Amino acid sequence: MTRRIAVLAHGGFPDGAKTATGILRYADAEVVAVLDRDIAADDPDARVTDYLPDVTDAPIVANSSESPDFDALVIGIAPIGGSFDETWRGDVTHAIESGADVVSGLHYFLADDPEFARLAGEHDVELRDVRRPPEDLTVAEGVARDLDAEIITTVGTDCSTGKMTTTRELYEAALDRGVDAGFIPTGQTGIVIEGWGIPVDRTVSDFTAGAVERMVRERSDHDYLFVEGQGSIIHPAYSPVTLGILHGSMPDSLVLCHEAGREAIHGYEDFEIPNPGYVAELYESLAESVAPTEVVAGALNTAHLDETEASDAKTRYQSQLTAPVTDPIRDGVGELLEAVL
Amino acid sequence: MTRRIAVLAHGGFPDGAKTATGILRYADAEVVAVLDRDIAADDPDARVTDYLPDVTDAPIVANSSESPDFDALVIGIAPIGGSFDETWRGDVTHAIESGADVVSGLHYFLADDPEFARLAGEHDVELRDVRRPPEDLTVAEGVARDLDAEIITTVGTDCSTGKMTTTRELYEAALDRGVDAGFIPTGQTGIVIEGWGIPVDRTVSDFTAGAVERMVRERSDHDYLFVEGQGSIIHPAYSPVTLGILHGSMPDSLVLCHEAGREAIHGYEDFEIPNPGYVAELYESLAESVAPTEVVAGALNTAHLDETEASDAKTRYQSQLTAPVTDPIRDGVGELLEAVL
Repeated sequence: MTRRIAVLAHGGFPDGAKTATGILRYADAEVVAVLDRDIAADDPDARVTDYLPDVTDAPIVANSSESPDFDALVIGIAPIGGSFDETWRGDVTHAIESGADVVSGLHYFLADDPEFARLAGEHDVELRDVRRPPEDLTVAEGVARDLDAEIITTVGTDCSTGKMTTTRELYEAALDRGVDAGFIPTGQTGIVIEGWGIPVDRTVSDFTAGAVERMVRERSDHDYLFVEGQGSIIHPAYSPVTLGILHGSMPDSLVLCHEAGREAIHGYEDFEIPNPGYVAELYESLAESVAPTEVVAGALNTAHLDETEASDAKTRYQSQLTAPVTDPIRDGVGELLEAVL
Repeated sequence: MTRRIAVLAHGGFPDGAKTATGILRYADAEVVAVLDRDIAADDPDARVTDYLPDVTDAPIVANSSESPDFDALVIGIAPIGGSFDETWRGDVTHAIESGADVVSGLHYFLADDPEFARLAGEHDVELRDVRRPPEDLTVAEGVARDLDAEIITTVGTDCSTGKMTTTRELYEAALDRGVDAGFIPTGQTGIVIEGWGIPVDRTVSDFTAGAVERMVRERSDHDYLFVEGQGSIIHPAYSPVTLGILHGSMPDSLVLCHEAGREAIHGYEDFEIPNPGYVAELYESLAESVAPTEVVAGALNTAHLDETEASDAKTRYQSQLTAPVTDPIRDGVGELLEAVL
């Protein structure tokens, strides 16, 4: 049965609410409302498709009591630091009291909030903090390379280069072709969309590869697994997460995600991004001794470019990678899927 | 004032008690006794130097009440899984009741044990669980490469190739020469020896590089910092920890540690260790975009070889690295220190 969900995105919809837009695009759930009190105050008749034309429509409402009935409230926005905004308390309380589960990817765990925990007990609903890793993680055994499933992992030249989107589009395109495929979520948005997964960036570093290995083993009955990558191997802060996914998933092929024109690591502007072809080789060299693989395709985010510029950028990226390249949003992922299947 | 410590190593001294031997070799403390009830039962007059000729002597006793007075009891042994052995409870209880602190690198945190916590409160002693990372870790800012201190980090072809020993020997040799040097401990033995440090393998993967960066920043008033490495970049489970240390410490030079003749990853026998020269290049390539560095020396563990075999192995390793090589225990680290200073 499809779940009916309300998505909280106060003050952030759509561009500041990555989880909310990810859910609207990809989740197998009926979104009955988006909560954004700023938008609702400006326009009581506002609709989701006023902002995102390509998704199923729903009303934008000011709070959870104005939403049509729902089975779960999802926190679809993450303030800096991942804390809980106390002005959301009424929405969460109302959701629990109306018998709905609450799903959150915040660093602040709802289940550790005494009031929410008590209410959830009384109303027999679940508070699901997807950012909390399981407590029984262990070191990797090094077996993902022996699985029958063909494993495709997205990697990047940086954070926020479209790894989640590319992985998701590849997975859905594979399903559309009748391929038996699975999606391995490693970050909060993917986990909320899929309803399972491990937030790899929150695992203890000794167990990071093990967490990814555990997920691919659990789903290894599929013919193809699409693993959502995180960060970048050349990122001065997040590279351990990236390497844990590479060595934990032991992929058969890699898709390298890059944003056209980005020259430095986002937020670390003194760190230049080298030629993406060099970055591709670095991923391959790192995989070599553990589980050899190749970058077989490239995804290029060209959202900020016009048609001609985008075409030039793709030609350049394609020659750097010597592999097929598309912008998954502009062009679809047909060619990339051909390369990985 | 030098602290007097008793080191618990029941049933493991010396070879199964890596922390105990590390303390005896390197800690700036007076070891007044080693607790090993098995040895003490066999020989009530047993001494530490019967087992380790090159350290300061002390008696081996059956329990903490038979030890000369001490200021701290250190757990110098880690059973598989890092759990607390209940047969040690009497020793810990006696230590606390006699007013001594207790230092532990176990996964089981003594401070979370209700009985120990209560007793420690009553007797005003500290229970120091060195395996618990600080709670305020953050992401790396990417600034270690800008520090004035010259940073030397040990890396390895595998776990247990002598990174702690090599780092420690380099650090002490530097001090002996009058160099203003600091030691950055990243694992439990190093932390117990130094009395500070962060157990990098227990940090959240997003903060692993940040934890290392924080330590080198804190000690950046030294001219030289020697950073203890962990794991290996080609290890199927622990590589994220290794990369966090590489990118967090942004070293000026690297010393590659290898065990002569080891052909596969310890405990992961299906994973071959490639030519150490290739592994050295991989470390350099990974560092290149973040903070360029070079492998300037090699440390080779030849403990299991005779003199001729060891010499052949060093010659081979030296030609693979095209850098000076010694066995730090057999030959000292003089040549390695020349290469890094």
